[in-house]
Amino acid sequence: MAAFSYKISAKDGSARLGQVTTAHGVIDTPAFMPVGTAGTVKAMMPGSVAETGAQIVLGNTYHLMLRPGADRIERLGGLHKFMNWPGPILTDSGGFQVMSLSKLRKMTEDGVTFQSHIDGSKHELTPETSIDIQRKLDADITMQLDECPAHSDDKKLIDTSMQLSLRWAERSKAAFDDRAGYGLFGIVQGGVFDDLREQSAKGLIDIDFHGMAIGGLAVGEPQDVMFNVLEGLMPHMPEDKPRYLMGVGTPEDLVGAVSRGVDMFDCVMPTRSGRTGKAFTRRGSVNIRNARHADDPRPLDEHCKCPACKDYSRAYIHHLVKAQEILGPMLLTWHNVHYYQDLMWWLRKSIGEGTLEEFVQRFHDDKLQGDIEPLLKEK
Amino acid sequence: MAAFSYKISAKDGSARLGQVTTAHGVIDTPAFMPVGTAGTVKAMMPGSVAETGAQIVLGNTYHLMLRPGADRIERLGGLHKFMNWPGPILTDSGGFQVMSLSKLRKMTEDGVTFQSHIDGSKHELTPETSIDIQRKLDADITMQLDECPAHSDDKKLIDTSMQLSLRWAERSKAAFDDRAGYGLFGIVQGGVFDDLREQSAKGLIDIDFHGMAIGGLAVGEPQDVMFNVLEGLMPHMPEDKPRYLMGVGTPEDLVGAVSRGVDMFDCVMPTRSGRTGKAFTRRGSVNIRNARHADDPRPLDEHCKCPACKDYSRAYIHHLVKAQEILGPMLLTWHNVHYYQDLMWWLRKSIGEGTLEEFVQRFHDDKLQGDIEPLLKEK
Repeated sequence: MAAFSYKISAKDGSARLGQVTTAHGVIDTPAFMPVGTAGTVKAMMPGSVAETGAQIVLGNTYHLMLRPGADRIERLGGLHKFMNWPGPILTDSGGFQVMSLSKLRKMTEDGVTFQSHIDGSKHELTPETSIDIQRKLDADITMQLDECPAHSDDKKLIDTSMQLSLRWAERSKAAFDDRAGYGLFGIVQGGVFDDLREQSAKGLIDIDFHGMAIGGLAVGEPQDVMFNVLEGLMPHMPEDKPRYLMGVGTPEDLVGAVSRGVDMFDCVMPTRSGRTGKAFTRRGSVNIRNARHADDPRPLDEHCKCPACKDYSRAYIHHLVKAQEILGPMLLTWHNVHYYQDLMWWLRKSIGEGTLEEFVQRFHDDKLQGDIEPLLKEK
Repeated sequence: MAAFSYKISAKDGSARLGQVTTAHGVIDTPAFMPVGTAGTVKAMMPGSVAETGAQIVLGNTYHLMLRPGADRIERLGGLHKFMNWPGPILTDSGGFQVMSLSKLRKMTEDGVTFQSHIDGSKHELTPETSIDIQRKLDADITMQLDECPAHSDDKKLIDTSMQLSLRWAERSKAAFDDRAGYGLFGIVQGGVFDDLREQSAKGLIDIDFHGMAIGGLAVGEPQDVMFNVLEGLMPHMPEDKPRYLMGVGTPEDLVGAVSRGVDMFDCVMPTRSGRTGKAFTRRGSVNIRNARHADDPRPLDEHCKCPACKDYSRAYIHHLVKAQEILGPMLLTWHNVHYYQDLMWWLRKSIGEGTLEEFVQRFHDDKLQGDIEPLLKEK
């Protein structure tokens, strides 16, 4: 088994073209990871996810530990086999969902205790148990447990939280069983404060992780604030480690963050939007529920090669969504994940060719055009 | 364009192996038609439906006329193009759903008026409008409008209803635009009364349809009553027309009805069951929600070649259904439709080889075995 590694093959400005090698395969970066919360990228067959170009999916430790349980998944041969995804998997630490979904949670230096949002059962998540659960899931990339506070101007609060995450980073590293092809990522915290971000990054570099994640963004701050944080942080990030911006984001977020040197992303946006009738296209987003699509024989995007665009009209997808047919979310999710992967493909190609600036310009010009004009009513 | 036709290539007892030729392709019979109620076989891509071996799907006139509307589907190029199903499509007349779903319906000699269950809008369905709607949908096989009463011992009531359906059959035939490759089926009514069934069949033969459907069964009567009706009716059915038993049924129903000379079936059972956690297998049905499957690494059916059985464990599908993941219905529906098509394949093969009796015996023996034994707990 090859060692877990990251190699850069080209740079264009701050943007990097690279490859992450894991136990279950290679990930071309910059990469977007579709979210497979409970062991499934919602409304998609894993083969379809792979067809979009996705090389890695994300699993949520919080959801999987509660149902069906990490021990059960381990007994069944690990998450890859369980969910029929032979490629790389990254699992988060569970901390973020504990904060947003669980009940009666109690945070201490040791970790966090909480009640399941599913059945009220009591659980504990510490840096050590999180690592252990992710090992049972057989994650190629394991995330340290961290505390992820909401966007805040209270520097003392953010500092205290960041320091706790740093102590948890150390414990996570100590608990991680270093096996060939498996990697552990630390998470930079520090909110919108450049000096705290720098301090966090340096602490993680001392501990030495396989990759560096950037947490605590996309939690309510405006996009320019997020980009400023990235610009302040990047000079303090190691060049030879993959950089993963957690929970981000819109297509515009991805383009801006890649330009600033980020290599990996995950977000529920393409999948969740697909279940609410929203489609991402080169020319911006489309709410397919809108009545203007009811008679439109054209595809969501005539340039898109996904099955939803190749074989179906806006009128049909509009009908499916209005009629609450399962095929609606199936087609829209497929399209959205395809769109995100297509965007990453173009970003990688442009970095490799040294034409990222032109691509970014075209990307924004396309968005400015807005969606295609409605057809004239025939009668 | 070839004419609509039905040809028998082999017989085994009363069972017939044949082919129906339509404007959009050939259907090998006996055939099971998956139900695509609102222009989609729920939770499946049309390509997947075809992969199971299905050659024809059914569309519901009632649902489609209300949403998205027959005129709209016609403007968009017909139902085949709309739903991306290039093969043959049969549409029902809408009558059955008017009775079971609509509000404030009023029946007269002319037809039936009703309010949509979706938005309360008023609509009328007569033999003529039903035929016209099905023409707009571009159905390869059009069904006459009939009245379908519930199972009843009241012979006078059933007689009156059957006579109305016969008058509607005549009007349907007059309204049908005979085009090459397109067929119109009449519907035999008469409840459980052999003489009424005979009278209905003779009336339809006089009118002359492309195929003969059998309605008013699978409406609450026991299976042996249904089989008795089929046995009483078959001597009065024309040999050279396909016979379609509407809304039937369980795998046992299909095997029994094919043995008695039925050629075509439709039923929501495989698709609807797939959305409630029920899987059909050679050894009977499996409720995948049951806790006994939570740790079971085995497929639903080790002999089944569908994606759900090839790539996923019972434990995983159990998890998906418990977690209300869309992939659960997707996999179970695929499996169930595959199972039904596989059963039809075996029936056709057995009729062709003259071994239907042996197959039916094996079919029942397999069912008697019951589902596979639960695994011993490992601890």
